Amino acid sequence: MPLVRIDLHAATTSAFRATVGDVVYDAMRATLNVPEDDRFQIFHQHASTELMLDATYLGIERSEECLVIQVTLNAGRTVAMKQAFYKAVADGLHARLDVRREDVVINLVEVAKENWSFGNGIAQYADPA
Amino acid sequence: MPLVRIDLHAATTSAFRATVGDVVYDAMRATLNVPEDDRFQIFHQHASTELMLDATYLGIERSEECLVIQVTLNAGRTVAMKQAFYKAVADGLHARLDVRREDVVINLVEVAKENWSFGNGIAQYADPA
Amino acid sequence: MPLVRIDLHAATTSAFRATVGDVVYDAMRATLNVPEDDRFQIFHQHASTELMLDATYLGIERSEECLVIQVTLNAGRTVAMKQAFYKAVADGLHARLDVRREDVVINLVEVAKENWSFGNGIAQYADPA
Repeated sequence: MPLVRIDLHAATTSAFRATVGDVVYDAMRATLNVPEDDRFQIFHQHASTELMLDATYLGIERSEECLVIQVTLNAGRTVAMKQAFYKAVADGLHARLDVRREDVVINLVEVAKENWSFGNGIAQYADPA
Repeated sequence: MPLVRIDLHAATTSAFRATVGDVVYDAMRATLNVPEDDRFQIFHQHASTELMLDATYLGIERSEECLVIQVTLNAGRTVAMKQAFYKAVADGLHARLDVRREDVVINLVEVAKENWSFGNGIAQYADPA
Repeated sequence: MPLVRIDLHAATTSAFRATVGDVVYDAMRATLNVPEDDRFQIFHQHASTELMLDATYLGIERSEECLVIQVTLNAGRTVAMKQAFYKAVADGLHARLDVRREDVVINLVEVAKENWSFGNGIAQYADPA
C-alpha cells in the first residue's frame, strides 16, 4: 500500500534505482509492518537544476547526490516505527549503494485505508459495508 | 479541485493520455460530486525501469501497462463514493482504452478546503472570514 | 520542511525555474513561519499534452503557461497564513517573472511533524521520547 515517489538525479543507473527500491521495500517490511510484495514505487529522474535541495538545513551537509523519498501510506504507524524506517532506509542506502546518510530526505503522507485501489476498481482495504 | 497525478509508461500516445484524463474526469463528475470543468491533471511518463509496481500483490495480476492515479482532493467523500470512483475509473479505462482493470492503481490524498488556490493568489474554497 | 513540487511546461529556462523557487521560498519565509534555508523543491517539466489544467474553472482564465505548486508541510498553519502564502506566491511570480496571477495553481498537503527526515535517518522534528 505505500506508494513511493523517489526523486533523484538522472545520472543514476537503472541498477542503482532498482537497489534504492529494494532498500526502501526492505525497510518497510522490517519496520512499518508492510505485507510481502506490497511494492509500488515510482522514480522521477531529474536534471540537477530541477532538484533544489538545501545544502545545509539543520546542519546536515547534503551533496549533489541528495535524493528525496516521499511515501504515501495508511495512517497509524507510531513515531517509533517511523523513526526505525528512516534509519533503515539511510543505513541500507549507505551499506548497499554507498549513499551518504546526509543525502537521504524522507517524507511520509498518511491517508485512510479506504483511499486505495490496487486494481479491478475495488477498495481492497475498506471495511466491509 | 482534485489535483490528479497520472504516472504511466512513456510508450503511450498523447491521445491515449487525453482519454485517460477524460475517463478520470468523467468518473469524478459521476461519483465524487466534482463541479464541471474542475479538471487539473498532470501526467508523468516513465521508462519501464522507473515504474516498479508489484505484479501480483493481493492476487491481482498487473502487467507492464499498469498505471498509477494519485488524486489530491478535499476530505469528506464517503467510502461508498470512493468505491464508486474506483469502479468508474477502472470500468471506463477498460471500455474506452482496453486497459486491463487489474492495471489501474488508485490512491487518494485528502486535504482541507482552504488548501487550494486556483489562481489569482486567492483561497477560493476557504470560508469567508 | 515544506517539500515543494512544481510542475510546469518544459519551455521554461533554468533561470526561470530558479526564480520560481526563490519566490516560493521567500513567500514561505514571509507568511508560513518557515525557517531559513528550509528549501526543498522539486521541479517537473512537462510537454504541453502532459498538463491538462482547465482554462476557465471558477471563472479564472488560465493560459498555456499555467503552473502547479504542490506543497507538503506540517499541519498547523491558520487559514489566514495560507491565504497570505497564496497571495505572496502569485504576487511574487507576477512581479519577478511576469507570470499571470491566473496561472498560479497551489495546493497544500499537511502532515505530522514526525513525518520528516532531513538526512541521517533521523526524524529531526519528532518530539523527544
